Amino acid sequence: MTEQEIDIYYKAVLDLVSLAGKVVNEGFSITKRVETKSGAADLVTEYDQRVEEILIKNLQEKFPTHKFIGEESTAAGVKADFGNDPTWIIDPIDGTTNFVHGFPFVAISIALAINKEVVIGVIYNPVLDRLYSAVRGKGAFKNGRPIKCSGQTDLALSQVAGEYGSSREPDIITAKCQNLRVIIEKVHSIRAVGSAAMNLCMVAEGSCDAYFEYGIHIWDYAAGDLIAREAGAYTCDPSGGPLNLLHRCILCTATKELAGQISPLLTHVDFPDD
Amino acid sequence: MTEQEIDIYYKAVLDLVSLAGKVVNEGFSITKRVETKSGAADLVTEYDQRVEEILIKNLQEKFPTHKFIGEESTAAGVKADFGNDPTWIIDPIDGTTNFVHGFPFVAISIALAINKEVVIGVIYNPVLDRLYSAVRGKGAFKNGRPIKCSGQTDLALSQVAGEYGSSREPDIITAKCQNLRVIIEKVHSIRAVGSAAMNLCMVAEGSCDAYFEYGIHIWDYAAGDLIAREAGAYTCDPSGGPLNLLHRCILCTATKELAGQISPLLTHVDFPDD
Repeated sequence: MTEQEIDIYYKAVLDLVSLAGKVVNEGFSITKRVETKSGAADLVTEYDQRVEEILIKNLQEKFPTHKFIGEESTAAGVKADFGNDPTWIIDPIDGTTNFVHGFPFVAISIALAINKEVVIGVIYNPVLDRLYSAVRGKGAFKNGRPIKCSGQTDLALSQVAGEYGSSREPDIITAKCQNLRVIIEKVHSIRAVGSAAMNLCMVAEGSCDAYFEYGIHIWDYAAGDLIAREAGAYTCDPSGGPLNLLHRCILCTATKELAGQISPLLTHVDFPDD
Repeated sequence: MTEQEIDIYYKAVLDLVSLAGKVVNEGFSITKRVETKSGAADLVTEYDQRVEEILIKNLQEKFPTHKFIGEESTAAGVKADFGNDPTWIIDPIDGTTNFVHGFPFVAISIALAINKEVVIGVIYNPVLDRLYSAVRGKGAFKNGRPIKCSGQTDLALSQVAGEYGSSREPDIITAKCQNLRVIIEKVHSIRAVGSAAMNLCMVAEGSCDAYFEYGIHIWDYAAGDLIAREAGAYTCDPSGGPLNLLHRCILCTATKELAGQISPLLTHVDFPDD
């Protein structure tokens, strides 16, 4: 894959995400018809489905040999196939619960992986009009301007983003609350905004110093992982090993030192791989 | 106090908050010199102090007989005197930890109480340029447009805002995490953005359905309480009794029904009155 080709894909996805953002914004402030998927906290709206269709249809027309992993297609029964072919990994609306409630942390998240490695990451919050993007090796950007993570090395001075309510299994909730209890007294502050993609962008731009979550899917963190790393952040499995995009969890920190302080504190929660 | 007089105060504070917002925005994206007040999670910057000085100086010149309760003046040893005289209750930067980290949930919060009753509430987030305001009996507004709370009556469909890390006392953290654990499995979602004033505005505008917190001060919730109530929300002491602005806690919900579902679930935490 040449640099020129990647540049063509990058320009195409930037154009497309702007179009998709208009659809998200249309739906943001009106009452939505909501369905549940795996449980009471797993919502989907007609907008999730429409935005995913727009993205896949347009990319498919432009790049007919490419593969797709989309949140809504997967929920509808299409098997996620993460192979070596160029593969677009799409979350049409990350933060659907926020979208339903009119809370502005919603994002379209799109990654392109080639040989199972993410080379493009784009996350667009159309409500706040914040576009985060990265191409592998070329840095990370917010609305076209370079961003850098905070560089924080001290957990006591860190603002830590997380998510505590996305599962309804009592054991999982208990483990997540236990993690919160342990972390909260060691840090500056904890934040929960309800979007994995936005959490990763917050570490990338330096407004949070760390983020960890269990139970997410490849479409929630494939783009954000690249954007955070291109902004200088460190990402790994919360247990400390290398990050695996199918392993449904991430620890993302401004520095490797910070990951070393957080990882041993966590009660690890296993989910079946994507 | 005539309606005309209140109108004069309202116009004055709206002009002033816009000026103060410029100072907050200046400081938002640069590195700040940070001091701690009561503990590691209680931060103050030169901007908190500057913004409070600007607000008090200007209001004092315009209304020389009025009294003031300001977060930073109180921290510096000025006794909070909440009497019957017209009293401006000011938090120059609610969400100082966010301000320090560059996370956009920061707000200037200003209330005017007369005979111990709040008649004007203004909360301005200059980073996101969101101005929430209310005059008693005249409804609540966001950037000049009327807002209404969600009207949600079902806890299972509610998005609930809260704060879990503002104290460093192990017993208090444990009680707060216990509240989170109990609430989290009964609701749609929980959010933590680190600003009491913004949390109350989120209930007012309908992007959250409920918010509760223990340990806050009168300047954190005097303005937001009025804005939320003028938007149709219900506010009370988390134990279920009437709200007391000196009692350092609030439960704010889209409906009274929702308060009746949340209050019995909470482990109540007592703080000494303001």
